[in-house]
Amino acid sequence: MLEQQMAFLVEIDKLKTIQRQARIMHGDRFENDAEHSWHLAMMALILRQEANAEIDLLKVVKMLLVHDIVEIDAGDTFAYDTKGHEDKDERERRAANRIFGLLPEAQERELHELWREFEAKETPEARFASSLDRLQPLIHNHHNEGESWQRHSITEGMVLKRNREIANGSERLWTYAQELIADAAEKGFLARETDETGRRP
Amino acid sequence: MLEQQMAFLVEIDKLKTIQRQARIMHGDRFENDAEHSWHLAMMALILRQEANAEIDLLKVVKMLLVHDIVEIDAGDTFAYDTKGHEDKDERERRAANRIFGLLPEAQERELHELWREFEAKETPEARFASSLDRLQPLIHNHHNEGESWQRHSITEGMVLKRNREIANGSERLWTYAQELIADAAEKGFLARETDETGRRP
Repeated sequence: MLEQQMAFLVEIDKLKTIQRQARIMHGDRFENDAEHSWHLAMMALILRQEANAEIDLLKVVKMLLVHDIVEIDAGDTFAYDTKGHEDKDERERRAANRIFGLLPEAQERELHELWREFEAKETPEARFASSLDRLQPLIHNHHNEGESWQRHSITEGMVLKRNREIANGSERLWTYAQELIADAAEKGFLARETDETGRRP
Repeated sequence: MLEQQMAFLVEIDKLKTIQRQARIMHGDRFENDAEHSWHLAMMALILRQEANAEIDLLKVVKMLLVHDIVEIDAGDTFAYDTKGHEDKDERERRAANRIFGLLPEAQERELHELWREFEAKETPEARFASSLDRLQPLIHNHHNEGESWQRHSITEGMVLKRNREIANGSERLWTYAQELIADAAEKGFLARETDETGRRP
C-alpha cells in the first residue's frame, strides 16, 4: 500500500511543471499549478469566514490541493480559451482515472470524489473553493497590471462575465472582485471598450 | 479586515520565489517553498494513517501550509548548514512577527500558534508534520540520484542522524526512509565512507 502511495506522491511532483497563464506576483515567470494550489489553500484558511454558507474547511482545503492534479495529463486550459474547453472534460476524466488510479482503492475513490465535487460546484464547499480559484488570478492580474489580460486581449466585460459566479460561493468576495476589476479598468490594466466580437478594437 | 487579509495573501506570494536545495523530481530546477508546502500537504492527506498517534488532519495540513512562510524574510536554511542554524530562530521569529502581523489579530494569533507548535515538535500533529517535512527531501534526493547530497558532500551517516526523528511522528515512515537511504547508498547516490570530519574523503 505504501508503495502505491509513494508512486502517486512521486507522480504528482509533475504538477510543479504545469504552467499557468498568470505570472507570479513577485518575479518574472509564470506560476505553476502546485504553487497555485498552495496559494488557494492558504486563501481558504484566511478567507473562510467570507463563504456564503457554513463550510467544512478541511474539505475545501482538500479540494483545492487536489483540483488541478488532472492537469498533469490534461494541461492547463486558459479560462478564456473556448476551443480548449471543448474536450477539457474528456481529457481531465482520463487523467483522473490514470493518476488517482495509482492509489490504493479507498484513496483513489476519495480523491475522485473530491475532484468531481469540485467540478460540479453544487455543494457549499465546492462553490467556495471555486470562488477562490476564480478570485486568485484576478488578484494576480491586478497586481501585475493586467499582463496576461493584455497578452490575450481580454476585456473588462469578459472578466466580469467569466467571474460573476464567484458570488455563488461568496457574495462578499464577488463585491471585492468587482472593485478590483473596476480599478484595473480605471488604471488601464484591462481594456474597457470592446468591438462586436467582444475583443479589444 | 478584508484589506489586511488581501495584503497578507499578496505578500505570501513571495514564498514562490524562495528556493530550496533539492531539485523538483521532473524537471531541471530547484524546488521553491510554495510548491514544497503543497506537496507536504498532499503527503499528509495520503499518508495520514502512518502517524504514530491519532491526529487532527486539518491541523497537520494547516501547519504544513504555513510552516515555511517565515522563510520569505529568513530564507531557506539548508538542513546540514550548521552556521546557518545559529541565528535561524531569531531570523524566523522576526519574520513571523512581520508577516503574520499583516493579518487581523485573531488570525495573526492562529498562524503564530500553528508555526510555534510546528517548530516545538511536541504534539502528535507537529511530530507527524515534521516527519513529512524530513521525508520529502529524501524522496526527492533518491529520485534525483542524490544530486543535492553530492553537491554538499553529505554522507549516509549524516542523513541517518539528521532524519531519525522521523520516527517520532511515524515509525513506519522511518522504516521506509531507512530503506530509501540504504538503497541510495547501495546505488552510489549517497556516500558511505566518511573521514574523521564526517565529510566524504
